[in-house]
Amino acid sequence: MASDAPAWALALLREARVGRLATADADGRPLVVPVCYALDADGQRLYSAIDAKPKRTRQLRRLRNIRENPQVSVVVDQYDEDWTRLCYVIVEGRAEIVEAGPLRERAIDLLLAKYPQYLALGLAAGDGPVIVIAVERIVAWRFA
Amino acid sequence: MASDAPAWALALLREARVGRLATADADGRPLVVPVCYALDADGQRLYSAIDAKPKRTRQLRRLRNIRENPQVSVVVDQYDEDWTRLCYVIVEGRAEIVEAGPLRERAIDLLLAKYPQYLALGLAAGDGPVIVIAVERIVAWRFA
Repeated sequence: MASDAPAWALALLREARVGRLATADADGRPLVVPVCYALDADGQRLYSAIDAKPKRTRQLRRLRNIRENPQVSVVVDQYDEDWTRLCYVIVEGRAEIVEAGPLRERAIDLLLAKYPQYLALGLAAGDGPVIVIAVERIVAWRFA
Repeated sequence: MASDAPAWALALLREARVGRLATADADGRPLVVPVCYALDADGQRLYSAIDAKPKRTRQLRRLRNIRENPQVSVVVDQYDEDWTRLCYVIVEGRAEIVEAGPLRERAIDLLLAKYPQYLALGLAAGDGPVIVIAVERIVAWRFA
């Protein structure tokens, strides 16, 4: 899938420091939150971690939404006052919540490599779940 | 509603140059896109314009989604490599598509005042619809 997207879009997806994740509950009520994320080398999966504060974590709306409805959308974009430079990349896919195992470890490795900030937060040792998004479609847009 | 939000959150909502709008279709499939927007002086409504390219405009997924399901979520956030500075504000509300009349004019006035770029794009003269979001809830978060 990801290989259909133009090179600039894949580069933006790899390099951007923040994306915005939209989920929706069983009634279709959407929620959008900023997320740190990492894209797998093959572009097939996108990972996002949840800080390990177990009690609050379980109640997080994005997780509840994904349990009810795995369809998600993530946008990564660049804003510029020169609107001819605007661009965005939307990833659509299906999310699952992974509590343990090799997929969670892969996610943690990639997130630690991209965000050294997670070291201080104890991400590797933490027991928080990760959101794993199987990329189904990429929509890329730029002004030009 | 908006008056319940902390002052920093309302200031961020007023001043940020880009937000991300999540809609969902009748099946609850979410879509998130970056949007330029303006908040009304009383914080009750948030406006976003659609570029006036009528044929493509009518088919825009965000508009189709809103027609099917008016529930929307908008996030405005600040990313910083110092994660103690992270913050975001989520607006939840109901959207309607306004093709003409005083509410559309109000939206155009506010958007032109915030974004001079729209002048060059002929927003005032254009006949594109605007998305009007009635703010129902504001969720504000910051690291500290």
